Amino acid sequence: MNPLPEKKHADRNGPDADARISLPLETLRQMGVEALLANGLSPEHTETVIEAMALAQRDECHSHGFHQLPGAVQLIRRGPLVRDAVPVVNDRSPSLLQMDARFGYSLLSFQTGLPVLVEKARKTGVAIMTIKNCYHFSALWPEVEALTERGLIGLVMTQGVNCVAPEGGNKPTFGTNPIAFGWPRPQGIPYVFDFATSVIARSDIQMHALAGQDIPLEWAVDSDGQPTSDPTAALKGALRTFGGHKGSALSTMVELLTGPLLGDLLSAESIKVDEGAGLTPLHGELIVALDPDVFLGAERAQHFDRAEGLFESIIAQGARLPSQRRYEARQRTLATGEVSIPRHLYERIRSLTTTTG
Amino acid sequence: MNPLPEKKHADRNGPDADARISLPLETLRQMGVEALLANGLSPEHTETVIEAMALAQRDECHSHGFHQLPGAVQLIRRGPLVRDAVPVVNDRSPSLLQMDARFGYSLLSFQTGLPVLVEKARKTGVAIMTIKNCYHFSALWPEVEALTERGLIGLVMTQGVNCVAPEGGNKPTFGTNPIAFGWPRPQGIPYVFDFATSVIARSDIQMHALAGQDIPLEWAVDSDGQPTSDPTAALKGALRTFGGHKGSALSTMVELLTGPLLGDLLSAESIKVDEGAGLTPLHGELIVALDPDVFLGAERAQHFDRAEGLFESIIAQGARLPSQRRYEARQRTLATGEVSIPRHLYERIRSLTTTTG
Repeated sequence: MNPLPEKKHADRNGPDADARISLPLETLRQMGVEALLANGLSPEHTETVIEAMALAQRDECHSHGFHQLPGAVQLIRRGPLVRDAVPVVNDRSPSLLQMDARFGYSLLSFQTGLPVLVEKARKTGVAIMTIKNCYHFSALWPEVEALTERGLIGLVMTQGVNCVAPEGGNKPTFGTNPIAFGWPRPQGIPYVFDFATSVIARSDIQMHALAGQDIPLEWAVDSDGQPTSDPTAALKGALRTFGGHKGSALSTMVELLTGPLLGDLLSAESIKVDEGAGLTPLHGELIVALDPDVFLGAERAQHFDRAEGLFESIIAQGARLPSQRRYEARQRTLATGEVSIPRHLYERIRSLTTTTG
Repeated sequence: MNPLPEKKHADRNGPDADARISLPLETLRQMGVEALLANGLSPEHTETVIEAMALAQRDECHSHGFHQLPGAVQLIRRGPLVRDAVPVVNDRSPSLLQMDARFGYSLLSFQTGLPVLVEKARKTGVAIMTIKNCYHFSALWPEVEALTERGLIGLVMTQGVNCVAPEGGNKPTFGTNPIAFGWPRPQGIPYVFDFATSVIARSDIQMHALAGQDIPLEWAVDSDGQPTSDPTAALKGALRTFGGHKGSALSTMVELLTGPLLGDLLSAESIKVDEGAGLTPLHGELIVALDPDVFLGAERAQHFDRAEGLFESIIAQGARLPSQRRYEARQRTLATGEVSIPRHLYERIRSLTTTTG
């Protein structure tokens, strides 16, 4: 690979370790592909994993972008992730598609099952794809957007490494258990939210730990159940759910629907699989697709216009729609073709390729 | 009707107006039936409406119990609720059942569609029942429990009178937009939550207004967007969503899935139908039923045992499962057969029957 033109960005925090470089997203993508292939991940998995990281990087979701690559290589090197797992498709019913990822990454199962899920939703109005026995590291909004791009409504949930205590408790019981939802909009970008049912995503605490920054006391408790501003102590303790007992109830729902309902692990069971290394959790994912055409027929356009009225009324009173920052970042990236990552991450990714390639 | 034995309960707040009486639930139910029939509601609607109030009263959910009866009679008397509406069934697909309540109460549509919904879920694993053009006043947990009693998982949502501002906004845009979920448990009572996506239910503020009690400042803003402790001012202003922008996003999702997706009204549109009286909103309801037997087959019991382990771990660390207070109240009511309501409500219900009966 040719040496890259490196630009040092304005450094907000001082130390050289925080220096960033800009590079074409396509270059970073190619580096990622080489790193994963060099470490033995199959071409099919490599393609879907790097695509997910590239989408996140494009939208400046740094914690789900190429920041994930070193951990992915670690997981691939040490196992038990299966590098060339071929998803098994169980076409269970007119509305239910069950994917078994066979202990590979979730993304290839999603891509393999997506056309079948879409076809089912178009016929029956509602269809579910489940993915079990999968490793999962990505955000959920790319999958939601894969549905909204096809005119469908999407609702997606999954677990995470167990690191969240139920409201009133003190043990890492739940994953961050995100819920994502997407509504296709007639013009332009969809209405999409994707949030952890914890106060914050675990990756946000990891980023603070990497940056050596304190966290707010309300985010987490340490292993003794005491609020802590130390991100490292928080990672050893437990995060709290958002919104008190309501968020805790939602997180429980996600555990149930993406664990036992799929015959898959709970967050607290998943952690045992990689012997406590906590790299990337092994668990299930639930994807619901609704086709408004089946619900509404020829009246779809008229009722989706009323939904636009709701979005307009939210904006008109000074509130924001979710994902707007992400969409703005996307526009910036698409305009320049370039993304920015920390220099240490860039060097790390280069080393992942050259060491074993 | 014979005069009832009346018992005055310990009065926490002093004034005689707060005195309560105990009476057999069956007696109260009969009074309710007579009041609704006397005001011209059809026997089929009367049965389902009073059953919903009786279930709530049994579980000491006072705001959804017979507290709702005077408002129901008001709605029946002044319209536009259709007193003898016959639900229209549209069996849209193997997984989608669309009920049109024809501007009657939602409950008769739910009861009419329930056997079809259950049959669909048992065949395909996932089925949705929608109810549109309905008036809705009841809690969602009775419908969730109707599914868990049949071994199914339930997820139900509906809107409400528009009284909640989006996070960062100041206008009554959303209903309280509750979400309810139920998971059947092998032994005993199900795991059920049912909560408003507002900080609090509007009925809680109504109860405070009736009792002349202040509300916490974080519950609501007045019509100028300022936090208020006056429940009457709050009812004229807007409630806030729980959990900041996450709760606001969930509330938006409920608006979309129970409004435009069903060809039905948004909360802010619904309020215009009864000319701003705000009695009972007209809008849609979405009921999702999942059959774990289709997902898991013979392995269901083993995986549901692991779900029990999750519940046990939550309780073991001192956290509570939702609905426990309600289940405890249920046990008390079932043991004595009696419920307690304010004397003024009792007198009001009597007057509803005798005035027009």
